[in-house]
Parts: sequence; C-alpha cells; structure tokens
Amino acid sequence: MIKTPILLNSAEAEIIRVLKKKHVISRTDILDFSGWSKAKVSQEVRSILDKGYLVEVEDGVSQGGRKPRMMRFNANLGYVVGIDLGATSVEVALADAVGTIVQRVAEPADVHQPAEEVFGRCTELILGLLDLQGCQIDQVLGIGVGVPGPVDFSRGVLVAPPLMPDWENFPIRSFFKKTFPTAFVVVDNDVNLMALGESRYGEALGVDHFLFVKIGTGIGGGIFSNGKIHRGNNGCAGDIGHICVDKNGPICRCGNRGCLEAMAAGPAIIQAGLQAVQNGESELLQQMIESNEGVLTPEMISSACREGDEAALRIIRASGQMIGDVLASLVNFFNPSHIFIGGGISNFGNHLLVAIRRAVLRRSLPLATTHLQINFSRIGSDVGIYGVLALVLDYLFVDEEKPFLSV
Amino acid sequence: MIKTPILLNSAEAEIIRVLKKKHVISRTDILDFSGWSKAKVSQEVRSILDKGYLVEVEDGVSQGGRKPRMMRFNANLGYVVGIDLGATSVEVALADAVGTIVQRVAEPADVHQPAEEVFGRCTELILGLLDLQGCQIDQVLGIGVGVPGPVDFSRGVLVAPPLMPDWENFPIRSFFKKTFPTAFVVVDNDVNLMALGESRYGEALGVDHFLFVKIGTGIGGGIFSNGKIHRGNNGCAGDIGHICVDKNGPICRCGNRGCLEAMAAGPAIIQAGLQAVQNGESELLQQMIESNEGVLTPEMISSACREGDEAALRIIRASGQMIGDVLASLVNFFNPSHIFIGGGISNFGNHLLVAIRRAVLRRSLPLATTHLQINFSRIGSDVGIYGVLALVLDYLFVDEEKPFLSV
Repeated sequence: MIKTPILLNSAEAEIIRVLKKKHVISRTDILDFSGWSKAKVSQEVRSILDKGYLVEVEDGVSQGGRKPRMMRFNANLGYVVGIDLGATSVEVALADAVGTIVQRVAEPADVHQPAEEVFGRCTELILGLLDLQGCQIDQVLGIGVGVPGPVDFSRGVLVAPPLMPDWENFPIRSFFKKTFPTAFVVVDNDVNLMALGESRYGEALGVDHFLFVKIGTGIGGGIFSNGKIHRGNNGCAGDIGHICVDKNGPICRCGNRGCLEAMAAGPAIIQAGLQAVQNGESELLQQMIESNEGVLTPEMISSACREGDEAALRIIRASGQMIGDVLASLVNFFNPSHIFIGGGISNFGNHLLVAIRRAVLRRSLPLATTHLQINFSRIGSDVGIYGVLALVLDYLFVDEEKPFLSV
Repeated sequence: MIKTPILLNSAEAEIIRVLKKKHVISRTDILDFSGWSKAKVSQEVRSILDKGYLVEVEDGVSQGGRKPRMMRFNANLGYVVGIDLGATSVEVALADAVGTIVQRVAEPADVHQPAEEVFGRCTELILGLLDLQGCQIDQVLGIGVGVPGPVDFSRGVLVAPPLMPDWENFPIRSFFKKTFPTAFVVVDNDVNLMALGESRYGEALGVDHFLFVKIGTGIGGGIFSNGKIHRGNNGCAGDIGHICVDKNGPICRCGNRGCLEAMAAGPAIIQAGLQAVQNGESELLQQMIESNEGVLTPEMISSACREGDEAALRIIRASGQMIGDVLASLVNFFNPSHIFIGGGISNFGNHLLVAIRRAVLRRSLPLATTHLQINFSRIGSDVGIYGVLALVLDYLFVDEEKPFLSV
C-alpha cells in the first residue's frame, strides 16, 4: 500500500523529471541530465526501481557496446480514477498508473441534486469499476474530479458555482478520502481539464498559449499561458459565457443582459429554432418537432443545418458570429496560437466553425491572426476524461521540497 | 571587461537563484538551499566573489558564535542602460549593476522618423550619460529597449507595429551592439515593461495574475500570468486598444470601426471636448482653448474636470465607462487580482477611476470581482523605465545550460 501523493526526495525528483520529458530513459540519460557520478546513478536507479515507481523494459538501441536497459513508469503501481462531471451527465474512468483507461462508465447526472448524492453516486460507480477490474480499494493511488463551475484549486472546493450554488465549499477531497483513504484527490474546473486533455493528448501538445472553448448548455473557456493552465486569482478564469455581446439582449441566468451564453449557447439556439418554426420559416424543423413529441433539440437543428435548411443555417451562423466576436477581443488580448472548440454544440460542424473564424478574422488584429488556428478538438467528447486523468498523474509524484498541494 | 550576458555554471546559477530570492545572503543560506558540503560552499563562494559578481557587505546577525559575513550583488560590476521609447518621447537611464539609476535624460522623440535616426539619437543620449558618469563604453553590461509596438521577444524585433510600420524587423540588438559591443541587448513592448516595473517596484510585487493598462494616445495592456509576463504567440498579447466597443463607432487607424482606442483614448477625448465647445456646452473649456491659441489638450479637460465642469466630467466618465466595459470582459476571461492603470490620461484622477470601477463591477461576475482591485499605478511615469531596467537585470546572469535568449 503506497501513501499518496508519492513524495520524492531530490534524487528521485530529478529522475522523474527526466522521465516525464523523455517517457523512456536509460541510465545514460539520467547521467547526462543530472551530472551525477556513474556510481550515484546506479545507486539511485536501483533504489527507485526497488520502490516500484519505475520498471525496466525492452532494451534500447546500442550506441556501440551493450544495449542499454531502458526504464519507464510502472503502469502496475496502482490505479487512478478520473471523474468528469457535467451539468447533466457523469463519466468515471479507471486507468492504470500511466493513464491507460481500463474500465469506464457514463450515465446521466443532475448537479441540481445535493453534492452528497451526486458524489455518492460517483463513489458507487468507482467501486463498480474496481470490482469489474478485480482490484482493491487500496490500489487506488489518486482521484481527479472535474466539475462544471469555478474551483479554488489549492483547496479543492467549488466557489460560487452558478449551476449548483449549494455545492459551494463542499469538501470534495475529504468526501472521497472517506471511501478511498489511500488516494489523494484533486479537483478542477471541467473546461480547464479539457484544455489540459488537449495539451497532453491532442493537437495542443507542446503549444504554449491556447484557448479551449466549450460550447454546450453554457459556454466556458480553458486558458493555457506559457505551457500552463491559467486559473486566475479565484479559479474562475476562462468564464467567457458571461461576456456581454448585446447590452439590450435577453436576461441571462447570471442576472445581466445579453451575455454570450444567453445568446449563443444551446438553449438560445433551441429558442431561435422554435421561433423560426412559429414564424413559419422552416418546414423541416416543424416536421422534426412534430415527430419528436413537440420537443426541439440542438441535434435536430444541427441535422436540419446539414440538409441545407435556411432557418437552421441562419441560427447557427448567428451563434457562431457572436462567439467569434467575443473570441476576437480575447485574441487581441491574449494572442493565442490556437483555439480549440469542443462541447455538445461543436457537433454543428463546419457552418459554426466558418462563422466563428470569419468573425475572429474580421475583428482581430492581423498580427494576432497570422498564425492563429481555430479548430474543433479532434479528441471529441473524451477530452475531459483524458484531462482529468492527466491532472491526477501530474500530482501523483510530488517533490517533497515543494509540494504543490496540501492534500 | 566582462562578456555578457554572464553565463553561469550550475553552482553559480544556484547561488544567484538564492540571492535573487533573498537579496542579501550568508554562506549558511547557500548551505541550506543547495545541500552542498561546507567545503563546497566555501569554494564556490570564493570563486564567485573572485569573479566579482558578488561582494561581501556588513556582517549579519549572529545566531550564537561569530557574526556571518553577508553577500549581495556587486553594484559596481558595471552599468546597465534602460531606454523607454514612447510615441512622442524617449527616456534613457543609466543604472549600476543592481538597478540604481545614476544618470537619466528625457526628451521629445518621434517614432514616425526612421528607426536609424531614433535609435541613433538614443545612442548619443547613452554616450552623454556615460560621459556625465565618467565611465567607459565597455563598462556597459546590458541595454534594455522598450518600444511602443508588438515585439517578437526572442528575436528582439518589432513585428507589424501600427505606429511605425517601417520599423518592422529593424535589427535593434545589432544596432546597439555596434556601439556597445560588450553589452547584451533585450527588447520588449513598452506596456509589458510597465507591468514588469509594477511587479518589481510597485504594488504588484508578488502578485501572480494582474493587468497593467496604459491609457494615453493609445490604449494598451500588459499581462502577468502565474507571476510571469504573458507575451502571447506573436508578442502582441495585451493589445486591448482594438477591442470593439461599438460596431457603428468611428473608424480607427487600424481600419476597423469603434475600437476602444478610437473611442476612449486621448485623441477621442480631445475630439469630444472640441465638440462640447462647439455645442456651447462648456464655457470653461472655451476660455481655456482661447487662452491656448485655439488648442485643446487632455490636461485642459482634466483641469476643467477638477473644477467641476459638467461637459468635461461627462466626457471623462464616458471614456471610463467604455474602458471599464472592455475590462469587465477581460476580468471574466482572465480573473486577475489587480488592474493597474497608468499612462498620460491616468492623470484624470478619480472621476476616470470611479467610472472604470463601476463598469467593471456592473458587468463582471461577482466571484471575479470579490477580491479585484483597480487602482492607478503609484509609481507614476517612472514605471516604464523601472521595468526596462528590471528586464536587463533579469537577463544579466544566465544559466549556461538553459540560456533564454540567443543574443
């Protein structure tokens, strides 16, 4: 049973740092990076292998002489859990100690329920996955929790979450530690984790400055600056859904008028679709609604769009333009090299993307858009769960001299 | 004669790192931070003192036993130069090797002139200061240049500067190295440097996430994220002057309509003042213009404001509100803990500040404004020159294993 997060002495920290850069390393790599004597390298490698943090793998390529024995992280050190909680759904993944998912489950969720209930259900789901995998509670090294609201990252609690105000300051870490006492727990905002997922497993790999924009029921942003998540002073950086696009626009659930979210996200798109039907502007949407018990969904507007329905196209383009206008300001301010778009509404495809790109190009400074790329995230809906697993692995090994979190 | 930037071996780099944190250190401090043996500390300290990077100063406080001999940076190692170039003025400062200004000079400048001429004049000003100080060209260790435009920091050149398009890619570094061959040269955007100055010598000391907003002939921003300047992908991050505030507004020099700069900066304020006079809305401004040969300046509007002139007040409030509306979006996006306001127009005082604060509070999310402070920079007009000197000192000592700049 390993106590987590795993505190490393300075020699171990040096080896882990090299390994995180190179993924597979030889003793010579450690020698080159550390400047230690051969004897010290030998001794430290022996010690870290004995602790089970690393394992020896297939031989490397010989540079003349014996083939070097290569080492990498020990995938069997234990398991990590990622929880990706959205407003209406939850996904839980169980992965090995290098992040390969071995079991996963998703189901509807409702964050308007009390936090105990929702996180209690998450606990049941984790226990179910452990059971399926045939492993024990004390093999869980760490748990990451992504939540749809602003997070005070160092304390691991939600702060003034608009969707679920009652969850404020709910002790997420200690809640999970009751059932999983050997695991450390990290909590972050869901869109920050999408950005992290994109940066580790997507096209943002190695990209220093980028934005991830989630468009769904709400609109949120994740920010990377100088290769790191920028969480801001209160953990609420990236909250672009409540930027004003029209002072005379409809009232948003935040109380202000004309917020981007109130005008361009899922519910606004549905509202515009219903209005179009009422105005007799789309026979196709009308038929779709009738054959769906009077209910209009974003997917139906998306599908009408693909069939060339004029009203649906107009609605999607208007939404894309408003999003693009806001992003244009942020591009001037932040000068990212990439913007990745994800979330449910991103399924709208090229019409939405083209409208966004056009608005950004029209209103941003030429220098800021010269190398700017705006694309859908290719990872798709898995980006959040990948991100939360990456976060857990980031904090699994901690330098004992500078621990990031007081867990 | 010292070759700059000064490349440090790993032991020297460790000592300099400790010194940058603590400013004055003892051998015991180095022992504690490095984990070296007493003998190695002794040897490394001797070596770095011999090279003249550090000097021994007054004794420290005894912890029992002999008083420890304290060390700090050697102010007499040489001189550094800071150039703060604005659209219409230039300031040059000569400082010792710890940044204490010993000579300075300011004069009008015009960036519409060719780069050779303007930087040639800067060279003359530096030579004049060296002469006044009685020191030699080869005593100049480093030169920092702040310019009013987007900078590719790693290359040290302006990229698509709207004010002086002809300066694009002008080789600022090699230009100065012709006259000052022993000095390294670093170039950055003027507002980034104001932010850096505020972070080292002002109220942003130790603040991780903040914005510096310069309001003058134009409007620009400097961004700190996680304690570091965020320059963005093309070095143009912080360009908030061209964020759209009114799609139907006047045409900006960038070609778009209704940019913040075109509606709320110095020239727009003067234009509004002239309009008020023309409409017979301000006798005071009319008198002021008449007694100033028909010319209206921002200072005159500021002074009318202080005397309670209604038209002047309205103009300043409108400007503050537009700036505040843009900042509200950026506060939602970036979640800074502080916004510092500087530049010529910031002299307008409390009326401007109150209007900015009110607009931000009205439109930002409550969580993002709970701890947000918006104030004028207390350093005042020196913040740019302080910043550029801080930048030079940051790059004076460079770890030979990871040099930041290829100078």
